[in-house]
Amino acid sequence: MSTGEDTGTLAEAEQRVLDRIDQARRRRPKVREERITLSHGAGGKATQTLIDAVFLDAFRNPLLEPLEDATRFTVEGARLALTTDSFVVSPLFFPGGNIGDLAVNGTVNDLAVAGARPLYLTAGFILEEGFPVADLNRIVRAMATAAARAGVQVVTGDTKVVQRGKADGCYVNTAGVGVLEHPGRLGVATVRPGDAVLVTGPIGEHGVTVMLARGELDLDADLSSDTAPLNGLVSDLLAAVPGVRALRDATRGGVATILNEVAKAAEVSVVVDEAAVPVGDPVRGAAELLGIDPLYVACEGRAVVVVDGDQAGEALSVLRAHPLGAGAAIIGRIAAEPPGLVLLNTAFGGTRIVDLLVGDPLPRIC
Amino acid sequence: MSTGEDTGTLAEAEQRVLDRIDQARRRRPKVREERITLSHGAGGKATQTLIDAVFLDAFRNPLLEPLEDATRFTVEGARLALTTDSFVVSPLFFPGGNIGDLAVNGTVNDLAVAGARPLYLTAGFILEEGFPVADLNRIVRAMATAAARAGVQVVTGDTKVVQRGKADGCYVNTAGVGVLEHPGRLGVATVRPGDAVLVTGPIGEHGVTVMLARGELDLDADLSSDTAPLNGLVSDLLAAVPGVRALRDATRGGVATILNEVAKAAEVSVVVDEAAVPVGDPVRGAAELLGIDPLYVACEGRAVVVVDGDQAGEALSVLRAHPLGAGAAIIGRIAAEPPGLVLLNTAFGGTRIVDLLVGDPLPRIC
Repeated sequence: MSTGEDTGTLAEAEQRVLDRIDQARRRRPKVREERITLSHGAGGKATQTLIDAVFLDAFRNPLLEPLEDATRFTVEGARLALTTDSFVVSPLFFPGGNIGDLAVNGTVNDLAVAGARPLYLTAGFILEEGFPVADLNRIVRAMATAAARAGVQVVTGDTKVVQRGKADGCYVNTAGVGVLEHPGRLGVATVRPGDAVLVTGPIGEHGVTVMLARGELDLDADLSSDTAPLNGLVSDLLAAVPGVRALRDATRGGVATILNEVAKAAEVSVVVDEAAVPVGDPVRGAAELLGIDPLYVACEGRAVVVVDGDQAGEALSVLRAHPLGAGAAIIGRIAAEPPGLVLLNTAFGGTRIVDLLVGDPLPRIC
Repeated sequence: MSTGEDTGTLAEAEQRVLDRIDQARRRRPKVREERITLSHGAGGKATQTLIDAVFLDAFRNPLLEPLEDATRFTVEGARLALTTDSFVVSPLFFPGGNIGDLAVNGTVNDLAVAGARPLYLTAGFILEEGFPVADLNRIVRAMATAAARAGVQVVTGDTKVVQRGKADGCYVNTAGVGVLEHPGRLGVATVRPGDAVLVTGPIGEHGVTVMLARGELDLDADLSSDTAPLNGLVSDLLAAVPGVRALRDATRGGVATILNEVAKAAEVSVVVDEAAVPVGDPVRGAAELLGIDPLYVACEGRAVVVVDGDQAGEALSVLRAHPLGAGAAIIGRIAAEPPGLVLLNTAFGGTRIVDLLVGDPLPRIC
C-alpha cells in the first residue's frame, strides 16, 4: 500500500512529516457538540478533539504537548515523571478488584510506561453523602495493599463530600510522581518501520469484567479484572532489551487506541495480525454478545510494547518470564506506509482499518 | 489558666507532650457513623476522625503522618513538595472567580505555605454528561490565566465523563509539585509560646460569596471571592522574616480550624483577640444572618502566619507591602497553657474556646 507520494530523500521525508504536524496544529480542532457526551470520556475521537480544542489550546506548553500519559521534567537535577487519573468505574467493586486497586495501579502504570520508577502517590476522594463507611474502608484498604505491592506510598490526600445524587458513591483521583530511570529513551515518536508490536497479555479482561459485573447482561463468565501494577514487568523489560522504543498501558479505548496514537505520533503504519492477538474465550464470547471488538476494550494490567524488530524475540522471552507477562505475544509490526493508520490482517485473510473509537460502547469502565 | 499539672523541668514537660501524642495514637479513632455525611467533608472534627480512622490507618507512613497540606520529600537530591485537592464548589461560577481559579490557586497555595515554589500542576476533570462545553471552556481558560498569574504550568491531565445525575456539572482535581526553597524551616510543630499570629487579609470572603451566589439568601452584598495565588506573598515573607514558624492557607473550616491544628500539633494555646480579626462589613452582616462565625468560613486567598513575637511587626510590614496582604493584621499570640486550645478574647471582654467545627454550615464551598 502507498499514499502515492514520492518518497525521495530522508530529509524530504522528514520535512513532509513536519509539514503535516504543522498543518494539524493550524487546523485548531473545535468541539462541535454544545454539550459533553459520554463519548468525550471514552478515549476515542471525541476525547482527542476535546483535549486538543479545550485543554491543549488553553494550557499549551512543551511539557503538556506530547500528550503522553505521564509528563517528564527535571527539577534541581532530578529527572521526574508526573501523571494523574480520575477513576469513576461503576460498579465500584468487581471480580478481581475495586476502584481502589484501579486508582493505584492505573497511576503506577502510567509512570512505569513512561520509563519511571513510581515513588509517591496522592489520593483525592469525592464521596457522595450516604456512602457506606465500610465500603470506603474496603476501597482504602485495597489502595494500601496495591500500593505496597507496587512499592509506592500514598503521601498526601484530600476528601470532599457532595450531596446525595451529586456523585455515584465514590470517585477517586490519584496523581503520581516517579523518578525517570530511562530518560530520553521512550516515546511513541521514536517508533520506526521494522519494529515489532507486542502486548503483555490477553486483552479486554478488565472492561468485560466490569460490564458483566453490572448485571445488565445475562451472562456468567469466569473472568476477573486484569488490574495489576506493571512497574516490575516494565523494569525487567527495559533492563534487558535496549531496543524498546515505546510503552503504553492499554486502558480506556483499549489496544486499538494505543496503536492509533503510535501510528499518528510516529507517522507510520501499524499492521496487526488478528490471529496473533491474545484474547481469552470468555472475553471473545462476551465481546461478540456486546457487539464490540476486544481491541477497543480497556485493560488495566496490560501494556503495548513497540520494540526494534531484531529484539522482538528477546522482549517476548523477558515478558513471559514475569508472572504478569506470561500471556505476552507479538501481535504485529510497524510499516512505513500508509502513515497514521492501523491495519488489521483478519483471520479470514482480509485487511481492514482499525480506526479511533467513535462513541462509547462501555462507559464508566475505569 | 492552667491544667493543674506540675510544670517541672523542660525534659519532664517534653516527656508529657510525647506521652500525650503517644496516647492519642493508641486511641485509634473510629468513625461512629455508618454512612458518610456532609460533615465528613467540612474540615472539622468529623473530617479529622475520618482521616485518622480510615486514611491514616491504612496508608500510614512517615510522609503522610504530619497531615500537612503538602508532603515534603527528596528525590535524587531534589527537595520537593507534593499536594492534591479536589474541587466541588457549587455554583461553579461566582463573583471573583470560578472552580477553575480555585483549583489552580488552591494547589498553588498549599505548596506555597509548605515553603515550596510551585512548578507543575496536574488537572483531572470529572464531567457530567450534558455539561455545556462553553462552561468547560470558561473554567479551563480561568485555570490557564490563574496558572500564568502564579507562574506554574498545567503539564498533564485526565478527563472522565459520568452519566447525567452522577455529578454536579464539573469536578476538578489538581495535584501540584513544587521545589522546597525553605526545607526544614516551617511546620506547625515548631510554634512556641511568645509567637505572634497573623492573617494576611480580611477573612471569610470566599465562603460568604459562594453562599450568596447560590441565591438561597435574600441578600445582596458587594462581595467577591478572595481566591488568589499566595506564592508571591509567601516568598516575600519568607525571604524577609527568618522567624516565620508556620504558614497555612485558611480554606475549608476557616481560620478557626487552622488555629486548632496549630494548638494541637504544637501543644500550645492560641489566644485570639476578636477585635483584631479583620472582617469586612458584608461578611460580618451575612455571617450574622447565616448564624455562623466568620472564623469558620473558608478563604481561598488568605493565610495564617505564626512568627516569632519579636518579628511580628516586620512580618506585618512585609505582608502589607504586597497587594494580596494589604489587609494583613496581627490577631493573636501563642501561650503555653492550656495546651491544645484556641481561646478568643471577645470584643465584650469575655473569653471563649474556639473549638473544631462540628457539622457543616456551608457545604460545597471549595
